[in-house]
Amino acid sequence: MEQVERIGVSLEKNLLADFDELITQKGYQNRSEAIRDLIREQLNSRQLSNPKAHAIASVCLVYNHHLTKLMEKLTGLQHSHLLQAICSMHVHISQEDCMEIIVLRGPVGEINKMAENMLSQKGVRLGKINFITADQP
Amino acid sequence: MEQVERIGVSLEKNLLADFDELITQKGYQNRSEAIRDLIREQLNSRQLSNPKAHAIASVCLVYNHHLTKLMEKLTGLQHSHLLQAICSMHVHISQEDCMEIIVLRGPVGEINKMAENMLSQKGVRLGKINFITADQP
Amino acid sequence: MEQVERIGVSLEKNLLADFDELITQKGYQNRSEAIRDLIREQLNSRQLSNPKAHAIASVCLVYNHHLTKLMEKLTGLQHSHLLQAICSMHVHISQEDCMEIIVLRGPVGEINKMAENMLSQKGVRLGKINFITADQP
Amino acid sequence: MEQVERIGVSLEKNLLADFDELITQKGYQNRSEAIRDLIREQLNSRQLSNPKAHAIASVCLVYNHHLTKLMEKLTGLQHSHLLQAICSMHVHISQEDCMEIIVLRGPVGEINKMAENMLSQKGVRLGKINFITADQP
Repeated sequence: MEQVERIGVSLEKNLLADFDELITQKGYQNRSEAIRDLIREQLNSRQLSNPKAHAIASVCLVYNHHLTKLMEKLTGLQHSHLLQAICSMHVHISQEDCMEIIVLRGPVGEINKMAENMLSQKGVRLGKINFITADQP
Repeated sequence: MEQVERIGVSLEKNLLADFDELITQKGYQNRSEAIRDLIREQLNSRQLSNPKAHAIASVCLVYNHHLTKLMEKLTGLQHSHLLQAICSMHVHISQEDCMEIIVLRGPVGEINKMAENMLSQKGVRLGKINFITADQP
Repeated sequence: MEQVERIGVSLEKNLLADFDELITQKGYQNRSEAIRDLIREQLNSRQLSNPKAHAIASVCLVYNHHLTKLMEKLTGLQHSHLLQAICSMHVHISQEDCMEIIVLRGPVGEINKMAENMLSQKGVRLGKINFITADQP
Repeated sequence: MEQVERIGVSLEKNLLADFDELITQKGYQNRSEAIRDLIREQLNSRQLSNPKAHAIASVCLVYNHHLTKLMEKLTGLQHSHLLQAICSMHVHISQEDCMEIIVLRGPVGEINKMAENMLSQKGVRLGKINFITADQP
């Protein structure tokens, strides 16, 4: 269990009232949790600006699964890179389209390269990456 | 098979040279595919600015799986909302942390509410949402 | 002078240490100021997701100033809309290009429309908008 | 006058129809201009991911101008850094608040540092940076 510290924060009454309203809407049960989330998010984006930072990423692709060669190619890419492809999930969206979510682990710069490689394949309609900082395994 | 149309685009020589270099780096095999991706991405973000637009979203959460009540709560949330929770995948990141990727279907505004509700739970360290426009099922 | 309130926030020792390091790098003199900035930023983006929210925006355009008709058009646009164009600044970037920063006031949705109208003019190479929430004047 | 080249792009009928509708809404007069803007924007963000890339940035701050020491500090910062502060514009927003837009030139990493230094000052309520790639002067 991590040790917890308590700090004092002073802020204007109006700002506090607006913040309290927002976090109630979002479903937070107390201010500390909401502020911890803001801090974590800021630290996360800062670290990820370094291409060598170690991260876990979920790459989300939408593509036409009738293009069977594309599926082979995407699977091939997951095995050929220096990155660790951890797992993936396949979701049927429509008659034509499916969504594939691939979880990768490695340096931010390498993940970006591999994801770009996937997104640039013909038949891949859309793609997005989410990064989360991670310690080296 | 969708019908394809061919249009002409005029652009400055320098701009074209820079673009060609970038898309080669990214792994595109031709310009049309790269330009189609830019157009799809723009259309996608535009549509998603409407909270009533129908979308498919992957919500990616990182949390401490020792908090067993949290896992129950997150599963409960997936079942209680009006949204359709399609599937989810669980990835072990470290001794402490795991990543959960949940695929939801419904109006953008509703997905946002549910995702915020999940992110605001104590124990959820980080969270991100990717939206992709989708036709009504 | 606004009234200030002091609240307590509890957070893990490690998270606090990382946060302290980050805000020292950024130049903050104390934690309260850094946390207030995080809160303000979150409130600001939330409010701006409503197209009717009242905002002040700085629209930043880069364009070729040899296209004299473009300059007339951009000025015309600033006067024709229902929005209040407050002021603008012109910066010489190179032999060819200049940057124009235009400050507008009005509902987010209207500002977006006007900015898109400007960005879509031939000769405007790049454009960006920053929104800041504002009370009705 | 830059040389212009004409390329052919093939895309699905539906995608083209949606794109045509969007760019009409945005006010574009032809497709080439809209596609050039997409390409420029992509090249711009790619280049700016390198902290050593040369850029021009507009930093937009909102602060309470009754804090006279703050104004001196902000001006001091503009003169002390290795960066070239090109010009700035001051806008009165309300009784209390003003917006200052400062145009800086230099490497992306340096601009970020200076902007963070400004944003971290007590009294600065909000701040945003827009980067635009630029050739070395």
